[in-house]
Amino acid sequence: MDAPAFKTPEQMRKLFFPGSVAVVGASTDPSKLGHEIMKNIIDAGFAGPVHPINPKAEEILGRPVSASISNLAEPVDLAVVIVPARFVPGVVAECGEKGVGAAIVITGGFKEASEAGEALEAELVEAATKGGVAVVGPNCQGINHPYHGLCASWPLLTNQGPIALVSQSGTVGAALMDWAQLEGLGVSCFVSMGNRCDVDESDLIRYFAQDDHTRAIAIYLEGVKDARKFLSAVEACEKPLVIFKAGRTERGRVAAESHTKSLAGRDEIYEAVFRQYGIYRAETLEELYDYAKALAYMKRPKGRRILFLTSSGGAAIVATDAAVECDLEVPHLPDDLYASLRGELPEHFVVGNPFDLTGDATAEIYADVAAKAADHFDVLGLIFGDPIHDAHTAVDPERGDLVIFLGGAEVEREERVKIHEMGVPVFPTPERGIKALAQLYKEPAGR
Amino acid sequence: MDAPAFKTPEQMRKLFFPGSVAVVGASTDPSKLGHEIMKNIIDAGFAGPVHPINPKAEEILGRPVSASISNLAEPVDLAVVIVPARFVPGVVAECGEKGVGAAIVITGGFKEASEAGEALEAELVEAATKGGVAVVGPNCQGINHPYHGLCASWPLLTNQGPIALVSQSGTVGAALMDWAQLEGLGVSCFVSMGNRCDVDESDLIRYFAQDDHTRAIAIYLEGVKDARKFLSAVEACEKPLVIFKAGRTERGRVAAESHTKSLAGRDEIYEAVFRQYGIYRAETLEELYDYAKALAYMKRPKGRRILFLTSSGGAAIVATDAAVECDLEVPHLPDDLYASLRGELPEHFVVGNPFDLTGDATAEIYADVAAKAADHFDVLGLIFGDPIHDAHTAVDPERGDLVIFLGGAEVEREERVKIHEMGVPVFPTPERGIKALAQLYKEPAGR
Repeated sequence: MDAPAFKTPEQMRKLFFPGSVAVVGASTDPSKLGHEIMKNIIDAGFAGPVHPINPKAEEILGRPVSASISNLAEPVDLAVVIVPARFVPGVVAECGEKGVGAAIVITGGFKEASEAGEALEAELVEAATKGGVAVVGPNCQGINHPYHGLCASWPLLTNQGPIALVSQSGTVGAALMDWAQLEGLGVSCFVSMGNRCDVDESDLIRYFAQDDHTRAIAIYLEGVKDARKFLSAVEACEKPLVIFKAGRTERGRVAAESHTKSLAGRDEIYEAVFRQYGIYRAETLEELYDYAKALAYMKRPKGRRILFLTSSGGAAIVATDAAVECDLEVPHLPDDLYASLRGELPEHFVVGNPFDLTGDATAEIYADVAAKAADHFDVLGLIFGDPIHDAHTAVDPERGDLVIFLGGAEVEREERVKIHEMGVPVFPTPERGIKALAQLYKEPAGR
Repeated sequence: MDAPAFKTPEQMRKLFFPGSVAVVGASTDPSKLGHEIMKNIIDAGFAGPVHPINPKAEEILGRPVSASISNLAEPVDLAVVIVPARFVPGVVAECGEKGVGAAIVITGGFKEASEAGEALEAELVEAATKGGVAVVGPNCQGINHPYHGLCASWPLLTNQGPIALVSQSGTVGAALMDWAQLEGLGVSCFVSMGNRCDVDESDLIRYFAQDDHTRAIAIYLEGVKDARKFLSAVEACEKPLVIFKAGRTERGRVAAESHTKSLAGRDEIYEAVFRQYGIYRAETLEELYDYAKALAYMKRPKGRRILFLTSSGGAAIVATDAAVECDLEVPHLPDDLYASLRGELPEHFVVGNPFDLTGDATAEIYADVAAKAADHFDVLGLIFGDPIHDAHTAVDPERGDLVIFLGGAEVEREERVKIHEMGVPVFPTPERGIKALAQLYKEPAGR
């Protein structure tokens, strides 16, 4: 049996680090996707030449237009393709002849749409194979690689971060990108796989496993395309891999197979493989996001003993319940620590675990108590439950704090972004924070 | 055995519909809570007189200041108290003498803080009982009753809605109020109960059970104060009651008892009571919010057959899994409906269940297909998975649609507010929407 066929490193380099890009189907009309993507690539700060291709235009966004890829004088690494489906196989064939190593096909109307589309997709694959072009898509929302200033996607998002996000659903990818953007987080890369006619999740796992900016890989998946290739990629991947597998139920599997026109596979098999290979399984889309945040930004604590420092008694009780349910320990304070802190703090502070600094809590008090207590616990759970100004100054990125912020309205939103800028993830409820933290304790077994 | 002692209707009327308010501890200093609350009461549009009380000021926010409650010439229904704890029992005694029927004590430093505070709280209760003053708090974030223009709380929020939110934790209440505000939802009333020295959850359940603007009651609870009174209130309440009970685990219960200085009680007992009395139990803070939204805004569908109309194949698969796991049915289209819709819609639309309108979906197409399919199903799950302009025009409040919106960025945020203005709740992920919908099928047993 042959070894699984992965894309070559050179093809993947052209996909993610192109020196030049052609936008095939670039448009002069600002309401068209062919305009928006061209503009996003420019506005995201892509450093190399961006060539609009369109047989009917002369200039788009200040760049001279070529009638076709073949007509371009300069070499091109990556083509972003937004022309109608019937023209796509021809464009990809031209890419092959021209030596364009990679293409992102945004256009839909292929396998997902009709029998005619399925035939067209077969033509596309044939052209790609013949020409040695690595194709992402078709029917996808593109690639956003902020570390290369390459937003071949929409909307324009440029935040950088340590999570590589790979999605078989454009919407799910867009939703997670939006959540990240709203709280000041970014990605190392976002790939919308679409119909996965060529480049698949296995190629991407293998690629991001060696990508310097990626610390965790988050994948929305409806079904593995090639099981042997997938296992080969996963086995070699030393980074945390979080997967949301849609089509858990029989009815959901039927829907998934209708959506992807491929076998989604029984959930029991996925469950077994995920366990064996130490893949973190997210049960909800929010877990996919939360777990990726924890695994990309946090390090595994030495042990399971957590101290909750809080301004809110209520939120800390919720956190305590969640911690116990996730097999964490919420031990009492050591006697000497209790005695020294009880002696120096106001009487109405609850010196214990949870350690309740009450509504009078300031960032300084959090910082002071955290510094004194940190050595006695494996992890500090900082719960900011009020509009605590400068809360970020109480967070120590080296210490590996779990940060939960709620009930702080505008101050919360400002501080969350600041804490994220420090490289520490912030979770919106105690339950979500604790469940994400608990992932750090899972041993990636079998690899 | 005596009947449980509820507050009188007249006391509750003065608490929620006061004709006049005194702010005891109003401050000239804009950085002080005594200023902010005074200002919020005025800015929320309270129609009656608002009297600042402060022995050291002459005018606050354009109102003449009285040195004490007793010095006021006019009668007062409600006192909002923000003076230091040691003065509070005296203020409440004055309220009793003056005939002020209700007081909200914001001030902390009572039972929750120290033994001295516990004694002070006993004095406060004695003064309240003697004077016939219904007291909310102490140590609370007040009451916000937007249908009476009464924001005796902070921040200033004025959105009205059908959910009465009652919280034993100021932070949890503030967090849910903030979530609601962010998506254009409001409450019929928010009550932060604080130490619950007098008015408790049972009084509030009984009150909101007959409040015209309240369609569902959401409660964050660490422990019931008086079990017999609670059961009496619940038995008589015909509205949906959603409770998040903190202190589920033994360790959490210890934390809760430390926080409230009262017995939280074993979770098994709560679980049994909740089941017997048809109380909806939320397992997370987000569920408390989501379930309250569904129960307050939606009506119970005739049956469990749901049709998903979607622009996103992926999001609809996630929804299908969630639906099956919540005992909903995702049946195939009847043959005649399939035939007629297949005939009139573009080939690339997936005519089925999920019904995938693809990224080409417009609000008009959603509306058209929804109208034609509605009679064949018990509920329509409208999944907007892209920036779909005017999505709100496809939603029919009379039909009782389940609306899920994700991946739509700015358009999503605008449309969400518009759909909420139509009285239809929008959920941020398929899983959260489906779990909330599933609550509607639970029979409120035993009452």
